[in-house]
Amino acid sequence: MVKDVVKEGLEAVDARLRDVVASDVEILHEASGHIIASGGKRVRPQLVFLAYLAAGGEKLDPVVSLAAAVELVHTATLVHDDINDHSLTRRGAITVHARWGRTFALLTGDYLFAKVYEMMAPYGAAYNKILADATVELVEGETLQAAAAKSGQMDRETYKRIIALKTASLFVAATRSGAMLAGADEETVEALGEYAYNLGLTFQIVDDILDIVGDPEKMGKPVGADVAQGMGAVAFQNGIRRSNSNDGQEERDPYQQMMVQLRESGAVDVARAEAQEVAGRARAALRRLPASPARNELEGLIDLVLERDK
Amino acid sequence: MVKDVVKEGLEAVDARLRDVVASDVEILHEASGHIIASGGKRVRPQLVFLAYLAAGGEKLDPVVSLAAAVELVHTATLVHDDINDHSLTRRGAITVHARWGRTFALLTGDYLFAKVYEMMAPYGAAYNKILADATVELVEGETLQAAAAKSGQMDRETYKRIIALKTASLFVAATRSGAMLAGADEETVEALGEYAYNLGLTFQIVDDILDIVGDPEKMGKPVGADVAQGMGAVAFQNGIRRSNSNDGQEERDPYQQMMVQLRESGAVDVARAEAQEVAGRARAALRRLPASPARNELEGLIDLVLERDK
Repeated sequence: MVKDVVKEGLEAVDARLRDVVASDVEILHEASGHIIASGGKRVRPQLVFLAYLAAGGEKLDPVVSLAAAVELVHTATLVHDDINDHSLTRRGAITVHARWGRTFALLTGDYLFAKVYEMMAPYGAAYNKILADATVELVEGETLQAAAAKSGQMDRETYKRIIALKTASLFVAATRSGAMLAGADEETVEALGEYAYNLGLTFQIVDDILDIVGDPEKMGKPVGADVAQGMGAVAFQNGIRRSNSNDGQEERDPYQQMMVQLRESGAVDVARAEAQEVAGRARAALRRLPASPARNELEGLIDLVLERDK
Repeated sequence: MVKDVVKEGLEAVDARLRDVVASDVEILHEASGHIIASGGKRVRPQLVFLAYLAAGGEKLDPVVSLAAAVELVHTATLVHDDINDHSLTRRGAITVHARWGRTFALLTGDYLFAKVYEMMAPYGAAYNKILADATVELVEGETLQAAAAKSGQMDRETYKRIIALKTASLFVAATRSGAMLAGADEETVEALGEYAYNLGLTFQIVDDILDIVGDPEKMGKPVGADVAQGMGAVAFQNGIRRSNSNDGQEERDPYQQMMVQLRESGAVDVARAEAQEVAGRARAALRRLPASPARNELEGLIDLVLERDK
């Protein structure tokens, strides 16, 4: 039942996204349509819907645009990330950057950001502030990540700060604003926010693990693309540099070498344990909400995030 | 008197902009601070203030954040433009792109866009929509320009559409929202919007002329940087290609050659006449407002825009 409602809501989100990018400017229309059509897991719109339902909301109509806007923030950052990472494929399809070139990818990302802002206008100040703050944090997280990658300086604390900003912030904004639109009280909003924060951390840690050990076919993108910027760098700092200095393999491709060593270093196991720990906190936060089918779905999302292999 | 009020308002805008970019993330703080400190003409905040005053507004406090947000939209696009154009200097200073590199310039632009959205949240739906729509149009204009530059296809109509989208839209948003915040009636808002639209066209045509004939020292940037994308391309389409095919100078630097020929082709004179014409429309729109010191200042802006040499 809740599953059906959410499924219908996600179809409405897709329709809304297609509508919203119907620019007269052909390149923007095509490039935006391309990245939107390539799908993705739509985790963030699901969070908007489930938080809204768990907080007592009924018909999803009032939150469809919000859910679409949250997804579009994420989409815009993907388009810009792919420029910075020189990525050629994403979700099994060619990236906007690879297909339309850097200039148009940059403009497409800007266009999507502007469309978010346009879509959110009717929701009023409180909701605009929540999503704007999350977008600022997301960009801050990306910047810290790029700075860490450049300097080669990444410790566990920096890594946590980065993933909180670049991933958890938008998860929190999704659930908080969804709950608020259902008229939830402050405790409910807080509990859902804490759930989402920890789900976001779990999601990103698992994402970084998959980046190291995942199957490129399932992932739809080259494995390891983010590794130097994410937990890879942490593991690198923590252990690999030592082993590296003594193995006499300096002449192998240093990137390949790092990937092999990451897999063998135990860093992935540590990360898996951390993912379990923050997932536990997400679960605990959920228990502060009254039982409901939507709460069950939110709990199910934790398992999906932990178990995903792509 | 009005001049003093506006001057004070612009100081408040600068203070607001400095506040707003005080990120914990050092690179974002520094790069944003750099582009903001490099100044610029602050034409857009002036338009917000003068429209507000011409429409009967008094103390500027309620429009300072709006004026800052409008300027920040412009600033964000400059940072991204400089990436796409590979520009090394802007307003006499090094560009964000040249100093911090492409990745951080891209993120700085995104950060500034997100800050606009954050700053605008308190103004409510109508104002958010106006600025969001203008931002969408601005990005559409930039995209059409990049597409025209790439294809070499630019006619007068395309050029007009581009400058209306990329420059006039934000001028219109500035005056309309400024007037609305003063409680102006629909006719006043319309008259100020029409003034701003034509002032925006004038501004951009003059900008493109300066790009061809300006003094690089005064401009604070290399002259001709935008030329292939702007009216240069129009002139090129209209006349220069013909002369070029017969002058036997194919071996000179084709860019230098194009610049020389643009100066000699009469295209600049045509553009000057066009600037005068649209400036006349801006003047006519102003006459629909009651006389006031602020209206005089708005009229003065037309002359400043027409006469500027940098």
